[in-house]
Amino acid sequence: MNALTSAPLHTENGAVDDTPADSNVAGDVINLARAGRAAQRVLAKMSSGERAAALVLGAAALRRAAPAILEANALDVDGGAAAGLSGAMLDRLSLDPSRIEAMAAAVEQVAALDDPVGQIIDETARPNGMVMRRVRVPIGLIGIIYESRPNVTADAAALCVRSGNAALLRGGSEAVRSNRAIHAALAEGLAAGGVPAAAVQLVPTQDRAAVGAMLAASGLIDMIVPRGGKNLVARVQADARVPVLAHLDGINHTYVDRAADPQMAKAIAFNAKLRRTGVCGSMETLLIDALFPDPHGLLEPLLAAGCELRGDARACAIDPRITPADAKDWDTEYLDSILSVAVVDGLDAALAHIARHASGHTDAIVTADQAAAARFLAEVDSAIVMHNASSQFADGGEFGLGAEIGIATGRLHARGPVALEGLTTYKWLVLGSGQIRL
Amino acid sequence: MNALTSAPLHTENGAVDDTPADSNVAGDVINLARAGRAAQRVLAKMSSGERAAALVLGAAALRRAAPAILEANALDVDGGAAAGLSGAMLDRLSLDPSRIEAMAAAVEQVAALDDPVGQIIDETARPNGMVMRRVRVPIGLIGIIYESRPNVTADAAALCVRSGNAALLRGGSEAVRSNRAIHAALAEGLAAGGVPAAAVQLVPTQDRAAVGAMLAASGLIDMIVPRGGKNLVARVQADARVPVLAHLDGINHTYVDRAADPQMAKAIAFNAKLRRTGVCGSMETLLIDALFPDPHGLLEPLLAAGCELRGDARACAIDPRITPADAKDWDTEYLDSILSVAVVDGLDAALAHIARHASGHTDAIVTADQAAAARFLAEVDSAIVMHNASSQFADGGEFGLGAEIGIATGRLHARGPVALEGLTTYKWLVLGSGQIRL
Repeated sequence: MNALTSAPLHTENGAVDDTPADSNVAGDVINLARAGRAAQRVLAKMSSGERAAALVLGAAALRRAAPAILEANALDVDGGAAAGLSGAMLDRLSLDPSRIEAMAAAVEQVAALDDPVGQIIDETARPNGMVMRRVRVPIGLIGIIYESRPNVTADAAALCVRSGNAALLRGGSEAVRSNRAIHAALAEGLAAGGVPAAAVQLVPTQDRAAVGAMLAASGLIDMIVPRGGKNLVARVQADARVPVLAHLDGINHTYVDRAADPQMAKAIAFNAKLRRTGVCGSMETLLIDALFPDPHGLLEPLLAAGCELRGDARACAIDPRITPADAKDWDTEYLDSILSVAVVDGLDAALAHIARHASGHTDAIVTADQAAAARFLAEVDSAIVMHNASSQFADGGEFGLGAEIGIATGRLHARGPVALEGLTTYKWLVLGSGQIRL
Repeated sequence: MNALTSAPLHTENGAVDDTPADSNVAGDVINLARAGRAAQRVLAKMSSGERAAALVLGAAALRRAAPAILEANALDVDGGAAAGLSGAMLDRLSLDPSRIEAMAAAVEQVAALDDPVGQIIDETARPNGMVMRRVRVPIGLIGIIYESRPNVTADAAALCVRSGNAALLRGGSEAVRSNRAIHAALAEGLAAGGVPAAAVQLVPTQDRAAVGAMLAASGLIDMIVPRGGKNLVARVQADARVPVLAHLDGINHTYVDRAADPQMAKAIAFNAKLRRTGVCGSMETLLIDALFPDPHGLLEPLLAAGCELRGDARACAIDPRITPADAKDWDTEYLDSILSVAVVDGLDAALAHIARHASGHTDAIVTADQAAAARFLAEVDSAIVMHNASSQFADGGEFGLGAEIGIATGRLHARGPVALEGLTTYKWLVLGSGQIRL
């Protein structure tokens, strides 16, 4: 849950199952990180236009390398099938010409985004004549630890380069050949655009000790972004000595208030649950005001579509197809065609349920009562709080941020969809004319 | 160095000398944290004016309690003297009527600051009609771990309450009676203003296990701010599983360029080192361009004032009173009337020295050459980078931020002087009219 977490690499209860970092692997990672930091200083001196142009060359190189990438990917997919990966995992792993084109186009889209680096956040003149100016600067070296989807190699690298950061990438072993082929192509294009080679590095070894060495690289890696399943993210959050930008769960609630328009509520609930069940913005719990006039009409489309509903006693009374929920259901991110449903006594009860069970990701109210909406927006303490909209909009692109590196459910640095701005920090420039302090 | 650090509570090398957390002490801290979180939710619902008014009542209560605070403080000072505290430490510990008045006035000043909570950071309307609005909200529960100066009890509590955060305070044992008296008075005033008691709590035990429990309270304490000496801050940064906002060293450089006005350079160098040697913004290393015309005139006032200068070979050649620096000097924060001096071959050499030795706090250039200044401002990667000004201005008040909770040398969340804004985060409000995602 914390965006910026911290914990021991080796917990006392022995929960970390890695072998201790092999000293050569750890040393190699440290050397990669040092090279990345040095390259970042060069990258930061390039102009915004130069970095964007290099990304466009990178996208072109990806397109040119499509045959090699597909060949490498076929070997990964064969290996994954032989290793018994699920169909869903094989689908995430698989590339085809259209997916490579989408990857290249995404790099071009990132190149076209406004560059946050150099933006002046604020500036004030002091009575003594000094000017205090805050300007955005890159964070430095970002470590990305990810699984399955090989497009993360290109996406994450592009976001880092656009914002002047170096990237140290560590993909999953199931996609190792694909990741290497994508990295090689992108690196060739970036190099043609003047980006130093070490600005985007792929950790060459699949030894798991490399992950431990990245998580321990305090002072060398400035931030770690895990991209993958809950187990990966939890492990990174538990073990990192480096700040982590991550989200664990999206236990997202939609509260249908007594004053909700029934048609709107029905459309939003259906979309929030079933548009895509596997995305982190999908609704997992539906809270229905006991005074909402048409609870059966609200649930019927979900039931008709085959969604499994697990309810509290009052919800079960709405329709016999609803099965009783157990205590764990209220804290479960299904990422599936399953929904918890509770009937609550109005806004206060909804707020109490959400305060207890929400994961701080995205929670929504449907109501025509502006006062109820205002209270919900003020009092729900989640990264994203919505009024009369589907939680499936929890996505950087839908927020107008262009691409996103992830959605953060922690509280510090960046919250909700994190895009280029979240990959920057700031420094203070003090512009004087000889002032000394009395 | 990292603002948001992370590390094991018990390091493998056994560097942490605390006894393991006593389960009762740890349980007590967890209960305090839970109560603080609950109180914060109440505090967050109070209006900005209500929180400000409560702080004004708190300031009045501090003034009324001055006799009791002074009595408690006298016992602390006696105990500290008996325990052999240094004169400087006893001075930091000691209160008198004027210091209590200053403490109360500081609380009133914080009450008068603009409240960042509720500020709209940005807002955009999407093509589908949804409005995405980012608003500032409190972080939650802030843990403050501090030493010696009892005024931190009031200062930190006031900053937290002003920004809607709950505070869990853990002062040093040398000031325990003073801290309790200050906390009791402030709490009385805040309660009269409607602030729940648990919004500002002082950890009642001086058992060091309580500090360990705070540092381990991931998910309960949202951020830890250590205020004190280097050992305290280093211990907190090394052991915390909670994000930490802190700075360790202020190894601050001033580079006097060949194009510096000699009079301005002399005044700035003297002020940056000697105005107060014990503050984190004081200059610790002076870099002199080999082509600067009057190096002796630059150093003479420092030498005349009794400042010890430790130089590289070329600096030692400027004046016989300059002694040779050893390798450690370039990485030392003296906080004393001692200065490292190096003669460098122009801007590039200065930038290289700073990149290698600076602690990321405050570094300055003195020059009339705008191009050199622009490069310095762009390429020095410190929280504060100054042109033609004394590094002693590194202070939230001087930046126009009102009070500060500290100066952060890390890269994430907040950097440089951290005031009310740094005690907030944001959430996204999505204002729809029934939108569903296609």
